Amino acid sequence: MEHLLDKLLRNAESDLYPCHMPGHKRTGWGELPAQLYKMDITEIDGFDNLHQPEGILLELQKKAARMCGAEETFYLINGSTGGILSAVSAALPVGGHILMARNCHRSAYHAAYLRNLKISYLYPQVLREYDILEAITPVQVKKNLDKTPDAGAVLVVSPTYEGRIADIAGIAETVHDRGLPLIVDEAHGAHLGFSSQVHENSCRQGADLVIQSAHKTLPALTQTALLHVNGERIDRELLKRFLRIYQSSSPSYLLMASIDNTLQYLERDGERAFAEFRKRYDGMRERLSQCRVLRFLPVDEKRQDIGKLLISVKNTEMTGRQLYDILLNRYRIQPEMAAESYVLAMFTINDRQEGFDRMAEALLETDSRLKQVKGPSLEICPDPSRKDAVCSESIGMEAAGLAEAWDGCKEEVCLKDSAGRLSGEFINLYPPGIPLLVPGEKITEELCRRIFSSLRQGLTVQGVNLRDGKQMVSVLRTGDFEKEIL
Amino acid sequence: MEHLLDKLLRNAESDLYPCHMPGHKRTGWGELPAQLYKMDITEIDGFDNLHQPEGILLELQKKAARMCGAEETFYLINGSTGGILSAVSAALPVGGHILMARNCHRSAYHAAYLRNLKISYLYPQVLREYDILEAITPVQVKKNLDKTPDAGAVLVVSPTYEGRIADIAGIAETVHDRGLPLIVDEAHGAHLGFSSQVHENSCRQGADLVIQSAHKTLPALTQTALLHVNGERIDRELLKRFLRIYQSSSPSYLLMASIDNTLQYLERDGERAFAEFRKRYDGMRERLSQCRVLRFLPVDEKRQDIGKLLISVKNTEMTGRQLYDILLNRYRIQPEMAAESYVLAMFTINDRQEGFDRMAEALLETDSRLKQVKGPSLEICPDPSRKDAVCSESIGMEAAGLAEAWDGCKEEVCLKDSAGRLSGEFINLYPPGIPLLVPGEKITEELCRRIFSSLRQGLTVQGVNLRDGKQMVSVLRTGDFEKEIL
Repeated sequence: MEHLLDKLLRNAESDLYPCHMPGHKRTGWGELPAQLYKMDITEIDGFDNLHQPEGILLELQKKAARMCGAEETFYLINGSTGGILSAVSAALPVGGHILMARNCHRSAYHAAYLRNLKISYLYPQVLREYDILEAITPVQVKKNLDKTPDAGAVLVVSPTYEGRIADIAGIAETVHDRGLPLIVDEAHGAHLGFSSQVHENSCRQGADLVIQSAHKTLPALTQTALLHVNGERIDRELLKRFLRIYQSSSPSYLLMASIDNTLQYLERDGERAFAEFRKRYDGMRERLSQCRVLRFLPVDEKRQDIGKLLISVKNTEMTGRQLYDILLNRYRIQPEMAAESYVLAMFTINDRQEGFDRMAEALLETDSRLKQVKGPSLEICPDPSRKDAVCSESIGMEAAGLAEAWDGCKEEVCLKDSAGRLSGEFINLYPPGIPLLVPGEKITEELCRRIFSSLRQGLTVQGVNLRDGKQMVSVLRTGDFEKEIL
Repeated sequence: MEHLLDKLLRNAESDLYPCHMPGHKRTGWGELPAQLYKMDITEIDGFDNLHQPEGILLELQKKAARMCGAEETFYLINGSTGGILSAVSAALPVGGHILMARNCHRSAYHAAYLRNLKISYLYPQVLREYDILEAITPVQVKKNLDKTPDAGAVLVVSPTYEGRIADIAGIAETVHDRGLPLIVDEAHGAHLGFSSQVHENSCRQGADLVIQSAHKTLPALTQTALLHVNGERIDRELLKRFLRIYQSSSPSYLLMASIDNTLQYLERDGERAFAEFRKRYDGMRERLSQCRVLRFLPVDEKRQDIGKLLISVKNTEMTGRQLYDILLNRYRIQPEMAAESYVLAMFTINDRQEGFDRMAEALLETDSRLKQVKGPSLEICPDPSRKDAVCSESIGMEAAGLAEAWDGCKEEVCLKDSAGRLSGEFINLYPPGIPLLVPGEKITEELCRRIFSSLRQGLTVQGVNLRDGKQMVSVLRTGDFEKEIL
């Protein structure tokens, strides 16, 4: 089968003169590599059209579908963002009702806003041991579907940003029992299903729509993703309509070629690459088991993605941000993110042995300098039904619908005086950008404390603005909305 | 000032190890150039965040604003598509009324669909001499605003796909007289205003929002664009909200670096590059004036963009598609597009002398072989108010609103039997994808003839599907909608 890259290179080396867009005419300026410009074309003869594929792009997407267990697959060039917007828009009519995990990416909230959806939330339970959100369970979905008989679709995230994997087969069964489609945001799981070393993907477990970021855990270029579809619960024509709407009509062939390139890699070398990756990763974990104070979210074949390294500083004298800064500045390792009590690092099949070694050495050395503040509980991954695995549900209290609130009249008030008011904006901890507050939700005292604590630790809180040295947030003007809570 | 590319290269060459996304870890596989992967990062420390810029991306966008005459400029990585969706969404509330040029890009129609806008059209007049659409005039805008007192914004395209430039200063005055914002789709005019050799851009002529494709007429990578904003008529916070909604939360640094690279180029070498380009272009036109039968849309400093070469085959024995195929197959020149009676080629500052020479030679040789079918009228660019410059208004006849119709119940019928029915889909001539029919519009006999004629000539008509050898179109089911026309 012909590969897009080969075809692009052949075109670049041919005698064909480009009297068409793009304006760089396949020659660059300055230091951007010449090769890059050479291959950057638009929909000229022989190169098909992503939004109406009939040739090479149709073939490549069919191949992706076969490799991922989908009936139909779409290359995405506006990230998983474009895929989530399209999936939610195709699954529900304007004004519909979605049951979605609270830890969804902001694009899911944006889709709900654009389509004026009513949202009911699935609140992930908290793994207190590590302060992370657990994946949504089939039992939670079933219970919540009982409470929302008019829901038209269910959306969950798996794996989560921290790598928790949901029982998608179980959730799909529950959702399908009601005749509804299940959308899985698998942005952090594009590598799943490609080897016995990693978990199965959601496509092969019954999800109707699955969105995967090809750049997050696979070696494709940033901003690339895949959308998979199975079954008859989603109107395919409507799905294609929204993909045309939310994605550029001038899609980058470089981005598309990098998806093809990645799938080629997996086809030829995937099993070997994952086996080697697993060996290296396990070697690092083995070394890290020597740490006295730092703790690591355990490897768990069933419910935790291999590839994340979650380093907990709970029960140490350090914050997540401090460990992040030590890794970055002293050891020259750029982690993925810092939270209050942990640092997240990511490893993929493209990591070199050097990366695993440097991380192990940096953490062992850091650990040797650390004092334990209080004895760590050795109990890990508690049963989510346990009492101490509190539900995060108490954080936000919805009073006004998302679209109505976000489009409503607002004013800015000091964060410290905001408790009791309804938020006018999203307030997110970034990364990963999961909202602490959605427009229309009531700001609680507890939440204010949490935001102040995050800010003090140097974490990025989107939606809090500094004005004349004061931390301000947007709230809905008192009036119509207040009536609803009283 | 620091350039993004330099910073990316320095990062790539540093000892910093990437324990973060993207998953390729700055090393590629196969033939995609290593340099490309090296520079492809995500929002790590020091590299700012496109959706909340405070560092290098804010500086680069400020520089772009200064260079383009805008108060504020946004880098776009989902093409002009993302910019048009954001601009229209920010300018009008859900259910608002837009006055827009009929020759808008499909993204403008998509924005109207997403926001459930009422659309009133500005129908461009036709330059019969060349079968192309003329730019919208201030007089047309004034007349149509008188008829649509509740319109909330005006959207025009300038330059058009064929390079017709509107009197934006005049249109802006008319639109601002009503207190409304003017949005200009300047996707084909990113090069404007950078030299005395080309026309001024819309930003400096009073438009409130201007969207430019950086890849179409400037040498940036495909899928890049700029959005400029001036004045107080657009809520900037709302605009930023929609830019966050319609664009990937993992924007490509390669795409962003290519915009920066292009602006650097223009800053250092722009005047020289445009002067050289103009000399080469004029040289080609001078040679082409020897043609006996082929005609060329005249250079017109005020109303026609330099850079397009529109080759008319009207009054020859050839169709546009035939000339296109000759250029492509015999002369190995890839034109931009073929229409029924012309071929469009594009030239930019990145074209080499070879390109102008090959085009001149190919056309002179082709011309020498051609017979004139009937004497060409030498009259060019007729006054749009003349009777023979018919208005295209008669083509589509709106009966149902866009969103209502596009979401309505549909069936497929044979194109030949479709006259009198209301279209259920967009029917576009591609490129450039301007709709002949919008969902909810009545299909006329004349339009069916035009579609058949385009299909016979091998042009791409989107929205016509081949089923068992029959050309089918989607129409609204008879019922509710029909009542509205009766």
